[in-house]
Amino acid sequence: MTRAALDVALAYHHAWAGGDLDAALSYIADDVVCEAPPGRLTGRDAYRGFLEPYVSQLVSATLIAAFGDDDTALVMYDSVTRLVDRAPGAECVHVEGGRIVRSWFIFDRAPFMAARAAVVGSGDAEGTAS
Amino acid sequence: MTRAALDVALAYHHAWAGGDLDAALSYIADDVVCEAPPGRLTGRDAYRGFLEPYVSQLVSATLIAAFGDDDTALVMYDSVTRLVDRAPGAECVHVEGGRIVRSWFIFDRAPFMAARAAVVGSGDAEGTAS
Repeated sequence: MTRAALDVALAYHHAWAGGDLDAALSYIADDVVCEAPPGRLTGRDAYRGFLEPYVSQLVSATLIAAFGDDDTALVMYDSVTRLVDRAPGAECVHVEGGRIVRSWFIFDRAPFMAARAAVVGSGDAEGTAS
Repeated sequence: MTRAALDVALAYHHAWAGGDLDAALSYIADDVVCEAPPGRLTGRDAYRGFLEPYVSQLVSATLIAAFGDDDTALVMYDSVTRLVDRAPGAECVHVEGGRIVRSWFIFDRAPFMAARAAVVGSGDAEGTAS
């Protein structure tokens, strides 16, 4: 069994985990469709808008597990961000022609919402919420 | 490659997806350790307390993907509940002796918190929030 989708999913993962958003997006199809916690994202620009705030505040990411085959891969990781110190995520991706065309993205928005509310509550939203 | 952990993960998944909490918990080790959105759960009783409210309001669950080997499995699914109509989740499990001993459980708490707040806001918290 070959694992082309897993190879792409891991290359994408290691790119954003290393802070290289452009390299990560090179694995995302122009017309990607992603089911994410805020709703459905369509197209790479929307995907960039979703991923960029997270990657920009990323401190570190660690793989928990990754499996896949030629078409589909499933990846789970933990991450530390400047806003939230424990932010695990899971992504299931379908790959065609070396790019992610369909994706399901799961993470818990609750700690991010709580952290942003705390920042706003402290009266210092502009300085530290980004 | 054998897939004992995947077999256990799928049996556990199909049990709770079918509404059979006791059957699902028969695959959970007495001393399971689970990293879940509310924090670390230790022991099957704590795991039951975490899973029961979700299973009790479950309408349906559909597998998105499942992969694994002899030791570890990774499962992603979507689900519909009476409280939240789109509640995907992902679980990574380590299996020993036919039972899940270690688990990472990811889902988005935000829509559940919003739905509960809406119920409380409607003044009918007792009747429909459980």
